[in-house]
Amino acid sequence: MKQVDIITEKTLTDVEKIQKAIATNPESEVELKGFVHKIRTMSEFAFVIIRTDRELVQCVLDKTNSFNINDLQEGDTVKIVGTTRLDSRSPLGFEITIKELEVLTSPHEQMPLKINKRNFDATLNVKLDMRPIALRNPKDRAVFKIQEGIVRGFREFLYTQNFTEIRSPKIVSEGAEGGANMFELDYFGRPAYLAQSPQFYKQMMVGVFGRVFEIGGVYRAEKHDTSRHINEFTGLDFEMGFIDSFEEIMQMEASMLRYVFDLLNRDYKRELDMFGVTLPEFTTIPTITFKEGKEITQKLSKKKIVDFGDFDADEEKIIGDYIKETTGSDLVFVTHYPSKKRPFYAMDDPTDPTVTLSFDLLLNGAEITTGGQRIHDYDMQVQKMLSRKMDPERFSDYLMIHKYGMPKHGGLGIGLERLTYKLLKLSNIREATLFPRDINRIAP
Amino acid sequence: MKQVDIITEKTLTDVEKIQKAIATNPESEVELKGFVHKIRTMSEFAFVIIRTDRELVQCVLDKTNSFNINDLQEGDTVKIVGTTRLDSRSPLGFEITIKELEVLTSPHEQMPLKINKRNFDATLNVKLDMRPIALRNPKDRAVFKIQEGIVRGFREFLYTQNFTEIRSPKIVSEGAEGGANMFELDYFGRPAYLAQSPQFYKQMMVGVFGRVFEIGGVYRAEKHDTSRHINEFTGLDFEMGFIDSFEEIMQMEASMLRYVFDLLNRDYKRELDMFGVTLPEFTTIPTITFKEGKEITQKLSKKKIVDFGDFDADEEKIIGDYIKETTGSDLVFVTHYPSKKRPFYAMDDPTDPTVTLSFDLLLNGAEITTGGQRIHDYDMQVQKMLSRKMDPERFSDYLMIHKYGMPKHGGLGIGLERLTYKLLKLSNIREATLFPRDINRIAP
Repeated sequence: MKQVDIITEKTLTDVEKIQKAIATNPESEVELKGFVHKIRTMSEFAFVIIRTDRELVQCVLDKTNSFNINDLQEGDTVKIVGTTRLDSRSPLGFEITIKELEVLTSPHEQMPLKINKRNFDATLNVKLDMRPIALRNPKDRAVFKIQEGIVRGFREFLYTQNFTEIRSPKIVSEGAEGGANMFELDYFGRPAYLAQSPQFYKQMMVGVFGRVFEIGGVYRAEKHDTSRHINEFTGLDFEMGFIDSFEEIMQMEASMLRYVFDLLNRDYKRELDMFGVTLPEFTTIPTITFKEGKEITQKLSKKKIVDFGDFDADEEKIIGDYIKETTGSDLVFVTHYPSKKRPFYAMDDPTDPTVTLSFDLLLNGAEITTGGQRIHDYDMQVQKMLSRKMDPERFSDYLMIHKYGMPKHGGLGIGLERLTYKLLKLSNIREATLFPRDINRIAP
Repeated sequence: MKQVDIITEKTLTDVEKIQKAIATNPESEVELKGFVHKIRTMSEFAFVIIRTDRELVQCVLDKTNSFNINDLQEGDTVKIVGTTRLDSRSPLGFEITIKELEVLTSPHEQMPLKINKRNFDATLNVKLDMRPIALRNPKDRAVFKIQEGIVRGFREFLYTQNFTEIRSPKIVSEGAEGGANMFELDYFGRPAYLAQSPQFYKQMMVGVFGRVFEIGGVYRAEKHDTSRHINEFTGLDFEMGFIDSFEEIMQMEASMLRYVFDLLNRDYKRELDMFGVTLPEFTTIPTITFKEGKEITQKLSKKKIVDFGDFDADEEKIIGDYIKETTGSDLVFVTHYPSKKRPFYAMDDPTDPTVTLSFDLLLNGAEITTGGQRIHDYDMQVQKMLSRKMDPERFSDYLMIHKYGMPKHGGLGIGLERLTYKLLKLSNIREATLFPRDINRIAP
C-alpha cells in the first residue's frame, strides 16, 4: 500500500535556502520558484524580477541563454536554476544569473493593473474592485503580513499569561449592545442576527477558564461611510477574571502591545520598512481620567465643547498631541468614562457612580481600544438593566452567569483593522482590510 | 501623571506557583484563587475543592479555623492562604490546609445543575440550554482546552512551513459551492450570504502569499438534524501554491496532524486523560484510491452498493476497519474521487478525467478532511463551469486569478468540531462546539 510520509522540521523558503547557501559560497547554484513580477529587457541581457511570498529577487537572463526572453511574460510562474552573485545594489544583496528557466504556468492575459510599478497609483476603489490581483503589489500585501504579526503577538503574549483561546458563535439571537445596528438573517425561517460583539460569550467563558481571548468576526450594520468605518471587522478581545482592579486590564493590554511591537520589529521588519513608520517604544503608558481629558480639550480646543459624555475625533487628537508633547508618549489611557455613555454591563465606580471603571486607549490621538471592569453581581446587573428600560427576561441566558456566580472581571476589545491602519498611518481603514465590506461593497 | 507598567515575563498560574514552591519545600505557604467547586463537611473539618482554570485543588478547613464553613457556599469565588501538604491520594499530589479564607464574590442562588458531580449526567439538551454554567464541569470544559491545542498546533506547524495566516470575509455575495444551502442576510436592503467556505479567498491569496491558512467560521444552511451536523462551524483551511503534485497537500496534512498530536500529548495530557483516548501514533499514513476503496466495500459490505460516486458513512467505517486490521493505522487517505461528485474547481486527473486529483482523510472510519488540487488554468476553469451549466460571468471576481495567472495549487478544509469529537470519541458533535447552532438552536 502507498504511504504518505511526514515532514518533521521547519521548511526554509527558497530565499532562506539561497541566503544559507551564499553564507558558505557566494557563487552557489540555487533554485527559485515564483511569479514573474517584472521583465526589463536590456541590449545584452534581461532583468527578470521574481516575486516570492515576501521578497522580490533580481535574476539576470543572458542573451546567450537558450531560453528566449520573448517566451516569458509577466504573471508567468517559473522555476529557475541559477548561480548567485553578490550585488550590494540589489535589495537582498545578491542576484541570480539564470542557467535554466522553466515556465510552470502562464496567465490567460496581462493584468489591467500595474502592480509591479514602484508607485502603484491606482485609486482605492479600483484596487478594491480588483483586490484578488491588486494585493499582489508588494506594499499592498505587506499590510497583511504585518497584520498576521499583530495577531500572532496578541495570541502568543496572552498564552504566556494563561489565557485560553475561545471561538464564540457569530449567529446570535440577542445583541450585546442592546440590539441596534445588527444585521438580520433568515435562520431556517426565524430571525437571527450577526454578532456585534463576543461580549456575552467571553464573560460566560471567564466563569469556565478564568482568562479567555477570542479573535473573530464582528458585524455592525452602521450606516457610516467614512475612511474609519467598515461593517465587518476582526475583534481582538480578551476578558480576565479574579481581578482586584480594572487597572490590571490596562496593564495586560500595555504588556501585550509591547510584546506585539517587539515581535513586529523582529520578524516583520522588511514589511514595516516599506511604510517608513517607527512603532511606539515604551515601558509605561501614561494615564489620565476622562475629566482631566475634558479639562485639556477645554483649554486647548478652538471649538466649543458641547458633548461632556465622550470625546469626538478632534478632541482625541488634541489629547494625543498634548500627551505626546508633555510626556513623549504616542499612547495614553483615558479612564473613568461617564456611566451613561458606557454599556449596561460596565461597572460603576463605587466612589462615584456617575463614572465607570473603564478606559479607552488612544494611539497617536485615535481610540484603538475600549475596555473596563464588568458587573459581576446579579442584583446590580438587573438593577442597571431596569434603570435603562431593558427587560432582564430577554437576557436570561447571559444573566445565568451573574445568578450562579462570577468572579470580579473585565476585559477589552481592539479592532484589528483599525489598529493596523493607525499603526501604519494608512489613509483608509479599507487598506488594512483584506476584502472590506462597507455600505456600498460586498464584493469581491 | 499616573503610569501603567508592563509585564515582560510569563506569568505562572497559582497551581504552577504552588508546584514550584513544593519542589523546594513540601510545606510551603501558598495562595490560591478560584471557584468553590465542592464542599464536603466532615465532623472535624471540611474539604473545600477549589476549581481553577484547569485544575481541582483539594483544600482542608479545620473546625479550629475562625472561618465558619457555613458562611461558604458552592459558586463563591475565594482567595485562600494556606500550607501545602503532600498527599498521594490527591490528584495533584498535594492538598492545602487553609489558614485564611476570603470570599471574593458570591452567587445569587445555587445552580440547578450539579456540575461538581463526578458523573455529570444531565441530558445533552439541558447542558446546552444551560451551556454558560454547564461548561464549568471539568470534563465538559476540557473538550475546549483540547480544541485550543488542536488550533494551536495547526497554526504553529503551518508557520514552520511558511504559510501566512489570512482572514477572509464571512459576508459574501456569491457562494463557493454554487449557492445552495446558504444563509441569506439583509445587507442594507440588499441580499447577501454567509460564507459557506473560504475557498475562493484562500485561492486568491495563494497568488499573493504562496501558502496561506485560515481558521474561521463556516456557515451551512443544511437542514440536517443529526449528531454529526451543526450549521455554524470552524474551518481549518489551508491552500498552497507551487506544488508539483496533489500528494504534497496530503503530506502537509499528515505532518500537521502529527505535530498536533505531539503537542496535545505534551501540553494537554491532563485533559486528554479525562477521555481515556490514545491519539493515533504514526510516521506514515496509508493511501488507497477511491476505486480500491469501492472494491473493499463491495467485498466486505453486507449491503448492496448503490452509489458509485461517493462513500456513505457505513462504507467509510468498513474501509477504516479494513485499514486498521491490515496496517494498524487509524488514518487512511482515499484519493482520486470521481469528478462528478467533486466541486467545479477540482482538478481532473489528466490520465483519467473521470476522477480528480483529490483526497479525503478518514480517521477511525469517518471523513475529517476533503482536499485536492484546484484548476489554475483560465480556459479549463471556464470550460468546467460551462459543462456544469454555471455562468462564468457571475464568478468574474474569482476568475480574475485564473485570468491573470496562478501557480499550480491545492489545499484542504478540516471541520474543527468534527475533528475534536472524532478524536475524543464523543457521541455528538455538539459536545465539541462551544455554543452550537443547529436547525433548532440559536441560543444561548
